[in-house]
Amino acid sequence: MSDIGQVETFFKTIATPEDPFVFRSGATLDHVEVAYETYGELNADASNAILLFHAFSGSQHAAGYNPSVKGCEFWTKECEDGWWNPFIGPGKALDTDRYFVICANYLGGCYGTTGPASLNPATGKRYGSSFPNVTVNDMVRCQARLVTALGIGKLLAVIGPSTGGLGCVSFATLFPERTQVVIPIATGVKTTVLNRIILLEQILAIENDPKFKAGEYYETGAPETGLSLARMISHKTFVHLNAIERRASKDVVQPEDRFSWYQAHDHVESYMLHQGRKFTDRFDANTYLRICEMWSRHDPVVEADAANPMDLFSRSREAGHQYLIFSIDEDYCFYPEEQAALVQLLKEADVPHLFLTVHSEKGHDSFLLEPDLYTPHIQVVLQNAADTG
Amino acid sequence: MSDIGQVETFFKTIATPEDPFVFRSGATLDHVEVAYETYGELNADASNAILLFHAFSGSQHAAGYNPSVKGCEFWTKECEDGWWNPFIGPGKALDTDRYFVICANYLGGCYGTTGPASLNPATGKRYGSSFPNVTVNDMVRCQARLVTALGIGKLLAVIGPSTGGLGCVSFATLFPERTQVVIPIATGVKTTVLNRIILLEQILAIENDPKFKAGEYYETGAPETGLSLARMISHKTFVHLNAIERRASKDVVQPEDRFSWYQAHDHVESYMLHQGRKFTDRFDANTYLRICEMWSRHDPVVEADAANPMDLFSRSREAGHQYLIFSIDEDYCFYPEEQAALVQLLKEADVPHLFLTVHSEKGHDSFLLEPDLYTPHIQVVLQNAADTG
Repeated sequence: MSDIGQVETFFKTIATPEDPFVFRSGATLDHVEVAYETYGELNADASNAILLFHAFSGSQHAAGYNPSVKGCEFWTKECEDGWWNPFIGPGKALDTDRYFVICANYLGGCYGTTGPASLNPATGKRYGSSFPNVTVNDMVRCQARLVTALGIGKLLAVIGPSTGGLGCVSFATLFPERTQVVIPIATGVKTTVLNRIILLEQILAIENDPKFKAGEYYETGAPETGLSLARMISHKTFVHLNAIERRASKDVVQPEDRFSWYQAHDHVESYMLHQGRKFTDRFDANTYLRICEMWSRHDPVVEADAANPMDLFSRSREAGHQYLIFSIDEDYCFYPEEQAALVQLLKEADVPHLFLTVHSEKGHDSFLLEPDLYTPHIQVVLQNAADTG
Repeated sequence: MSDIGQVETFFKTIATPEDPFVFRSGATLDHVEVAYETYGELNADASNAILLFHAFSGSQHAAGYNPSVKGCEFWTKECEDGWWNPFIGPGKALDTDRYFVICANYLGGCYGTTGPASLNPATGKRYGSSFPNVTVNDMVRCQARLVTALGIGKLLAVIGPSTGGLGCVSFATLFPERTQVVIPIATGVKTTVLNRIILLEQILAIENDPKFKAGEYYETGAPETGLSLARMISHKTFVHLNAIERRASKDVVQPEDRFSWYQAHDHVESYMLHQGRKFTDRFDANTYLRICEMWSRHDPVVEADAANPMDLFSRSREAGHQYLIFSIDEDYCFYPEEQAALVQLLKEADVPHLFLTVHSEKGHDSFLLEPDLYTPHIQVVLQNAADTG
């Protein structure tokens, strides 16, 4: 699957007591490390860099094979293959013969970037509930510091699928001079009522677990039951329902699918329960909650201190951005209407953009699985930008 | 709203030690009481009766005003107005000047029909977890016994919205000689993958609540947190998302919307939390679980011991049934595709049917709120059946 081979996660300190990281909320952190990976080579004038934002439960490990991340207790077998292997490598959508691709774990994450499970150097204990609330703005500014630390002023492109798309649009409008191309895939511009309701369900699933204890569970055991239900609630939006039915028909009902009263009885139930259970080994509930909240409260206009959407996206017009937006026709996570709303704002602000809908039987997950639907356009848009510099 | 005035819930014993009720599972109950109400007068030849099946969280109290139900601890202010007042009364869809309307609480319910919260005469304690699992077939056979006990052989019509529609189709195919007209509204024929996933989420929300204790919580306090989350998960499918946003904008964020870590921050969240919380006073979690399971496992072909759908619906053709099916265009609970699947089976079995889609901004809830969209067709179909007898 990958032509990249074995890779390693690196760490960069982007905040120190002398230069702390200040959240939108006003909270500060004196120590922030960012876990990141890179693929390809940075060219001499540092003009071929692409910043890729991962999705909700993804990581910095986008390509190649990575058997372990230093100090990361959530790195399981499932994490070892890069989550965007079909899209990154020689000749692929993000062509590592031409470009230098950077992917970093979110601020507040659980795969190496400083987050709730990290040790607070001031106390010697994990942050837990004391880790600040995170906004997309915070996450993006953290990654902008990483880009700077890597010696890169202006990126060729920012790209991101799903919640990563929220990051890439925010990056482009917060730092308009720092990118040429913006490629949001299967994402939105502002959260919808349905987003907020489904995220609240997930938050409550974890809050209702008595093991959660406001986030102070690292000594006593994680809220696995709650996190598992939260993952099930979201999983149904990632995978097309027909695909769930196809996959489920191969599963068998497991003995552990018996609860105190209820006994799961069909393969769809068993498949969903399995999806929930296996997730709890590889993710931290405190990180999960912070990303839920980050997404639920996201409003790029407010977070960028813009007056209105026109004000926000005129920054993209003035910077000469080229957008390339992909919709997935039967996407139940970020519905096509959400990309249409973004495109409408770009039109109103007169920002150059290409807008495509891919037709897929896989639902939201198409962005992970079907490179042929995306690659040609991504390649051409990146090449054009590289040529015109 | 109602021209019916104050009404009373009556009780009928439909199972005794000499004539026990046998569930599909093989379990038996020696004592079953059914809580029911009636509106209008039964005519001399008992030919004007209509059996109405309520929806998931509804009750036997479909019309008029009822301040209390004997022995029912879940009867709150919210239950006092009949849930189908706009559709039942003189000159309304179910015209009480012409017809005798019967509505009964589901077997396993919490509004008077024998259910998990009822006292088991054999032990003097509540049934709790020992109350059998219920299928739509069981629920329908229970109501057929009530109809018999009321001295009615053949009904003019069976009608039911939402999960009540599952009941009315099952009644018609289990007892084809006992009705003329079948009116399923915003319902389905067999559960979909999405139905089963969302029902499983609700079941787990309750199972995960430590107060649930396999259903043995009557002495120690109900699993209100879990039941509240379950209700939230389902509520978003009942009300159009635009309507949720409209209603929510009037609400304020409540002090009780603060959890151990999370603080709700927008009106949609507050609205959803309120919907969950207020439900726990008026519903029993054990009943909730039995209806979830009843719906999730429903397959009318299997439950009627039919060979296939054609075999099932040919019973309707042979009995001369007339179907009237309503879809709601933006229904997120029973999607229009589910009614289309029912209609396809009726076509294949050559069963006379009328099929209409109502266009509504209210989503699934339209069947409660917009009588003008349904009434003329219901009146004409009932009148034609009454005329042709």
